[in-house]
This record gives sequence, C-alpha cells and structure tokens, in this order.
Amino acid sequence: MAKLDAATEKRILEAVDQGFEEQIGFLQELIRKPSLRGQEQTAQDFLHDAYKARGYALDRWAIELDSIRYHPGFSPVTIDYAGAFNVVATHRPREETGRSLILNGHVDVVPTGPHEMWQNPPFEPKREGDWLYGRGSGDMKAGLSANLYALDALRRLGWQPAGRVHLQSVVEEECTGNGALACLARGYEADAAIIPEPEDDRLVRANVGVLWFKVTVRGVPVHVREAGKGANAIEAAYRLIQALRGLEEEWNARKGAHRHFEALDHPINFNVGKIAGGDWASSVPAWCSFDARIALYPGVRAAEAAAEIEACLRQASRADSFLANNPPEVAWNGFFAEGYVLEEGSEAESTLGRAHLASYASSLESFVTTSYLDARVFVLYGDTPCLVYGPYSDNIHGFDERVSLASLKRVTGTIALFVAEWCGLEAVEAAGA
Amino acid sequence: MAKLDAATEKRILEAVDQGFEEQIGFLQELIRKPSLRGQEQTAQDFLHDAYKARGYALDRWAIELDSIRYHPGFSPVTIDYAGAFNVVATHRPREETGRSLILNGHVDVVPTGPHEMWQNPPFEPKREGDWLYGRGSGDMKAGLSANLYALDALRRLGWQPAGRVHLQSVVEEECTGNGALACLARGYEADAAIIPEPEDDRLVRANVGVLWFKVTVRGVPVHVREAGKGANAIEAAYRLIQALRGLEEEWNARKGAHRHFEALDHPINFNVGKIAGGDWASSVPAWCSFDARIALYPGVRAAEAAAEIEACLRQASRADSFLANNPPEVAWNGFFAEGYVLEEGSEAESTLGRAHLASYASSLESFVTTSYLDARVFVLYGDTPCLVYGPYSDNIHGFDERVSLASLKRVTGTIALFVAEWCGLEAVEAAGA
Repeated sequence: MAKLDAATEKRILEAVDQGFEEQIGFLQELIRKPSLRGQEQTAQDFLHDAYKARGYALDRWAIELDSIRYHPGFSPVTIDYAGAFNVVATHRPREETGRSLILNGHVDVVPTGPHEMWQNPPFEPKREGDWLYGRGSGDMKAGLSANLYALDALRRLGWQPAGRVHLQSVVEEECTGNGALACLARGYEADAAIIPEPEDDRLVRANVGVLWFKVTVRGVPVHVREAGKGANAIEAAYRLIQALRGLEEEWNARKGAHRHFEALDHPINFNVGKIAGGDWASSVPAWCSFDARIALYPGVRAAEAAAEIEACLRQASRADSFLANNPPEVAWNGFFAEGYVLEEGSEAESTLGRAHLASYASSLESFVTTSYLDARVFVLYGDTPCLVYGPYSDNIHGFDERVSLASLKRVTGTIALFVAEWCGLEAVEAAGA
Repeated sequence: MAKLDAATEKRILEAVDQGFEEQIGFLQELIRKPSLRGQEQTAQDFLHDAYKARGYALDRWAIELDSIRYHPGFSPVTIDYAGAFNVVATHRPREETGRSLILNGHVDVVPTGPHEMWQNPPFEPKREGDWLYGRGSGDMKAGLSANLYALDALRRLGWQPAGRVHLQSVVEEECTGNGALACLARGYEADAAIIPEPEDDRLVRANVGVLWFKVTVRGVPVHVREAGKGANAIEAAYRLIQALRGLEEEWNARKGAHRHFEALDHPINFNVGKIAGGDWASSVPAWCSFDARIALYPGVRAAEAAAEIEACLRQASRADSFLANNPPEVAWNGFFAEGYVLEEGSEAESTLGRAHLASYASSLESFVTTSYLDARVFVLYGDTPCLVYGPYSDNIHGFDERVSLASLKRVTGTIALFVAEWCGLEAVEAAGA
C-alpha cells in the first residue's frame, strides 16, 4: 500500500485524540472485569459486545483441548477449559485490496496478591494525572483498547481497512499461550500481527521461551520430638530451589551463544512463584510443593530445557540423604513454550517504524525481552511477522500496576497509522451507495 | 491409703483383661471421630455419652477465652472457641475417705497429611496383631480409653474409688494447652493427676515448653522479567528459617545449664511445619509465611524465649538487603507454654511405681521428653503432681500412627491399680443397701 502523506497521518492522529476520552472510559470498564484465570468470561463478553456494536463478525468459543493438544506449541494444562473463551471479531472490507492483519491482545490478568498491598482496589481503576491504575491496566487491557480504538479512529474519518482485520482477545497468555494457539488452530492467519503488550513504546526484537513446572517433595513426617528421624519436606524443597538457582546461572553463562541475548545482564530468570507445604507447626512436614518458572533462549527446544531441569533435580536429589530416598516429582503444568526472534527487515516492521515516527516524532527502538509473549505462536507456527509493541507501564504483575495514558494514546495512533498503510483504506460506505 | 495386696492386684488386672476387648471396641469408635482441631465435638459427645451411661456427673462447656486470657499459662489463639468443648466427668464417692485424682487426656488429634500416604484411611481404625492403627490411636485416644476402662475394671469387681475422680477429656493439647488450662480455671483440682500420653510405658520426668509462631514476609512483587528488582518473599523466608536453625543450635548448646536435659543429644527441636507463599509461577512472590515450633527448657520463661526469637529474626533481617526494608512480622499464634519437671520423691510417683511393677512385672523407668505436655498446667499452676505415663506407640503425628494393644492393656491395669491405692476403694453399693 502507499505510504501515508503527512496530512493523512495528522488527520488520523487527531481522530485518535478525539476518541481518547471514550477509550479511557472503555479501558476502565474493562479493568473492572476481574479477568483472572478461569474467570475471563465477563471481560470477554464485554469485549464481544463492544465488537458487535461496531458491526464486526463475531466468533466466540471455548478452547477445545483436542484442537491444540498435539500442536508442537501446546503447553500442558491443569485446569478445565470449559469457561476459557476466546473472542475474535473480524472486519472484512468490501473489496479486499489491502494486506490482512491480526490485532491481538490477551484479556487474562495475573493474580493481585493481597489487596491491602494496593493503594487502590486492583479492579477499581483509578486515574491520576497521566496514570491509570489497576490490575491489567498495562498488561494488557490498554493494548486491547488500542486495537479497537485505532479502528474507531479511522471510522471516525469515514474509513475502514481495505484488508481483512481480526481483533483477537485471547485467554491463557499468562500461563500457557494456549489461547493464541487455539486461534491459529482455528485457522486465523494474516499477513502480519500486532500485539500491544506493555513494552514501553518499543518493539520486541526477540524474546525468551518459558517453562512452568511444579516440584513436589514427599516424605515421612513424625512428631517433632523425633525431628532427626523425619526429614523436613519444606527444607528439602528449598534445597531443590537452590539447585535450580544453580541451573539458572549455568544457563545465563551460555548467553554468548545466543545472538540478541549476549548483551543482557541476566537473560534467563528463574522464579519460584508459589509454595505450599505442611499442615501443622508441631509435625515435621510430609509434603511441600512449589511452582516455578524459567526462561529459555530462542532456538532451545522446550523439551530439551525440560530434560535439563529434570536432570538437575535428579542430581541434587542423589546427593541428598532425604531426597535420595524420596525423589521429587516434577509436573509440567503450564508454559512449555519456545522463544522467537523477529527477523529484521520485514515490511511489517518498516511500516511500524513509519507509523511510530509519525505518532511519537521519534524513531522506533527495538529491544530484547526476557518474558513470555504470544508472538511466538505467530512467528514460529504461523510464519507471520508479529510486532509486539505497546505502551509505557509500571508494576505489571505487581501492586499498583499502571499504564501511561499519554503513551497509550500514541500507541493507539501508531496502530491506526499502521492499519491505514498496511491494509490500505476504503470508505465506510461505498461511493454513491 | 493402704498398699494393695497381691491378690487384689491380681483381681484388678484380671478385671482389666476381661474388659479389654470392649475397651478396644470403644477405642476404635473414638478413633472414627475425626477430632481434628475445630471439629472435636463429635468425639467429645461420644465420650460425654460414655461417661453419662456410667452415671458420672457431667460438665461440658466451650472454653471461654475470658476465663484464661490473663492466666500466665495462657497461649494466644487465632481460632474461635465457640465449638471447643471440654468434657469433665466426675465420680464422687459416698464417703470421701481417699485422695482425689484427675485422669486427664486430650481428644484433639493432629492433621493426617495426604490420606494416600497412609496404608489405611487414618480415621478407619485397623487392628493387626498387637497393633491398632489410626490417627489418634496413640496420641492419645488409647489413653482416654485407659482412664475410663480402669474405673470400669474396678466396678466390675463391685468397687469404686473412695476419693473424688475427674475424668477430663480436653481439646487444644496439640496447639495451645488451653483446654487443660480451662479445666484448671474452672476449678478442677485434685491431689494428683495422670495423663496417659503415649510414652512407651515410661514416666515423664521433665519436659520442654513449646512456642508456636508465624513469620510473615511481605515485599514488592514484579514481573519476573524484572526479577532482580523485586525480592522473592519465598526465598527471603528461607533465609529466616536458616537463622532460626542457628538459634536452635545456640539453645541446644546451652543444655549443660539444664538438669535433666544435658544428657540428651538434641533437646531443643525447631520445626518449620507449614509454609505458604505466592500466587503465580511467573510473578515474583510478594508474600510468604511459615508456621514454626520451637522448644524451651523448663525454667525458661516463654516471654524470654519469644524475645530471643524476635531478636534473632531482627538481626537476620538487618543483614539482608530485602528484609532490611521489609522486616518480617512475627505472630505468636499457639503454644506459649513453659516446661516442667516432676520432682522426684512424690507419693504419687511411688504409687505409680508399685502399680507399674504389678502390671508389667518390671520397674518403672522415667525419662525426659522434648515435646509439649499438658502436665505443665497441673505442675506449674495447680501445684499438683502430674504423672505422664502411657502406652507404646509408633508414628504419632506421622502416617500409620499405631498403638500397641498389649501395652495399652498394661497401662490400663497400672491406672486401675493406681486408683485403687491412691483413692482407696469402696463398694459400689452401700453395704446393706
């Protein structure tokens, strides 16, 4: 499609600006839907209705495990997907003269932690100066609003994309990536994809894969008066955590072999995120399990990394008098996902660069991130350039998560400009209709 | 009272033997009542009815916090006592010519842990050879049965104690000791007390005090991609556990100053019995709390020991970059109980020695134990010699807890003989009545 002229760019950015207060209101409503894992439905219904009101064709379905179970990008899952609904809204132009596009975002948010550690209730969005606070404000309901309101801005000018556009709101991004995978398995493809994750106004060049696992230690408990006899499962679990910290350092030491990652201080992060063990202060605990997450470099297969983790735990157990007799169990209970690199030089990236320059009056920077992104589904399995690019935020996954509204407006502008150039534009109503 | 002659001893032991199958049946029924903390009522009602059927005077009441809150032996409590019922059954002789006695036992049992780690369901008693399996079989429903069936054996011979006897079934022995304390506060006193805890046919000479506490670490969680920024509350908690292990060693090193304990390898046991922290594998955990138990020597005040623990945690936190800014909270949430020594040379102990010799044909041994016992309530605050003495058992607080039936029969015999000598005997029916 033709590059946009400066006047068109200006008109589009003004249209984004005109719609921005409405967009903030929409975002606040979306934050009020507490779309924690397993309870994303109300947020998805809210989005469904917003898409429907604009006349998009709707597709809403609960993920069927059988549709993705044998896909190489599948992550094991321990919950029931009966309520795990994806929503895809599709715009089809009258004449399909432009390139197609997926505007993806995830609706699931991570747990809030104790509410009293928040300044304001996490699902009660609070606007304060440039900031909008709330769980999911940055990660990534702002992005979902940007996808929708970018199209609204064009429509405000009497335009719509001249290529097919799928607005995807997916679940399961924070734990498996199976939501985006289920969209691909359902046949949704396009010439490019954008995911406006909170990336501080930058484009993701490469990112890590992620594995989730649960380690369970079990042993024989006894009365504490015989503490010497019974091994303490909680303390045994800590010894395994320490072994995994050792593996983390080993993997970080390999960064030189991974282009894009060698310049990072600490590309591979291990995290023990959850622990539970024992029943009673005066009984030596018989069981302890912890949930962990670790990253892997692009190019490393999930199964290879998993095998290394299992070997690490086996080795630590062999050297441990208690664990040698009570080997820990490892369960792969979430992300089993590989990393990706966005190859330089794609048309999609150049288009984003121009749109960003027009919206920010500064050039687009790319960077490497050490967190999971659904982009791997598009890049590795859909052969689709996927641009992860989104607003400035603070404390995603933490307390007092917030997103910058000025940044969100600019990101929305960038997306609107991208759509206009990538897909081309046609009038909403046919000439003479 | 007069020492028993050999013929009387023999008759009493035979009467215990005659009732023993019935006693085992009773014990099995009692094990079937899952008297975990907060749900002791069904077991207490069962005992209430058994006491009532025998014509004892009944007193059943829920512990009132106000009755014990200001007592020096009180332990802080975090649960509601609305359902925490004590039961005391009293035998009053026609003529009170003998000494009075309390036969105490606790009905509460500790959690089972995962049921699948048991050979048989924990609340489904299983008899196998000499063993009776089940949670609470040893600790200490066998003892409760011994108290009751010792009196039944005398009655089978047409006798009853010539002194007042209180059969006490108390709650809260496994966590606070407030059940026994509430009996004392209600005015129950006697010339001696017996608690048939599972002490492997021996008498407890001295035991430790116990403290329970919960340590909570809170910090700022972040996305794991920023793991360096956010400190991991689960791993910070582990650093505190290590500091407490250090304190444990320090306290053990002081054993030389404590008569009765200097000969023990490791008199002071610290235990981390329960842990919970974090919400999500991919979020750096913001919180972690653990429940711990530690012992203290007799003569050490609970408040002094608590102050040392708090100082230990403060010191460990000062040296820790994360904990220095996020000091842990300590809550005293259970045992705040001191240890005791059973002074040698009491009449009660000599009486028990004679009874044991008759029942076991071997002399009574005493030993020092490193677990909590309700006896401290009687000894420290009731000025009552309290004999903790009971059957052989395995795996109390563990899986496949079991009690030896041969041992239980002998213990029941010992108690029956003790009652006969200590309280004296009178005919159940008045002569000529």
